[in-house]
Amino acid sequence: MGGERGILLFAHGSRDVRWREPVEAVARRICERDPAAQVACAYLELVAPDLPTAAAQMVAGGARSVRVVPLFLGMGKHLREDLPLLLEQLRTAHPAVDFSLRKAVGEEPELIDLMARIALAQG
Amino acid sequence: MGGERGILLFAHGSRDVRWREPVEAVARRICERDPAAQVACAYLELVAPDLPTAAAQMVAGGARSVRVVPLFLGMGKHLREDLPLLLEQLRTAHPAVDFSLRKAVGEEPELIDLMARIALAQG
Repeated sequence: MGGERGILLFAHGSRDVRWREPVEAVARRICERDPAAQVACAYLELVAPDLPTAAAQMVAGGARSVRVVPLFLGMGKHLREDLPLLLEQLRTAHPAVDFSLRKAVGEEPELIDLMARIALAQG
Repeated sequence: MGGERGILLFAHGSRDVRWREPVEAVARRICERDPAAQVACAYLELVAPDLPTAAAQMVAGGARSVRVVPLFLGMGKHLREDLPLLLEQLRTAHPAVDFSLRKAVGEEPELIDLMARIALAQG
């Protein structure tokens, strides 16, 4: 609770509860690594909360900055074009809050390399 | 080309060409790390080849073992139930080949931890 720095994990969403487990596991891992951060998950579809709702909750919880991190391996055109617009709406709705948008995790060379190592690992 | 050990990266697929970039980047990284492996990508939907086609090409290319690695963050019920059946079909179609199915990369603790670190990183 509290925490002026907010981290919003943004994922696709699925009706399947187990689908969300990795997303929620990342949120827990962030809390372990940085207990001062305010962490929440938001979903593009099929699962609540959506991004505006989660962001509003975070701002109500005291966040002064919110970093949106897309947990997508690939970002389709839809997301590449719609997510920046969603961010603009968040900035308009909460002008006192500093919103930033990260690139999708799948675009991080470190993640690409780790997936390659996982694919090559025995066992 | 060649390579008795095959690694098949299995991803969701999207009409957007750029969506596939991370998947293809993982394939290239595997080739760099292990030039002796035969690596290919296959998709659940919207992009060719599908899994049976890619597996058949790999076997025709000399693969004696094929490891299927799901590049999914979350595996929905559909995939959890359908992918093992797809594997059974591959084993029936290519009885001389040793097929194995890895868990989804999103279930690997190392990947969860890296996504948490990416979310926390400055810049």
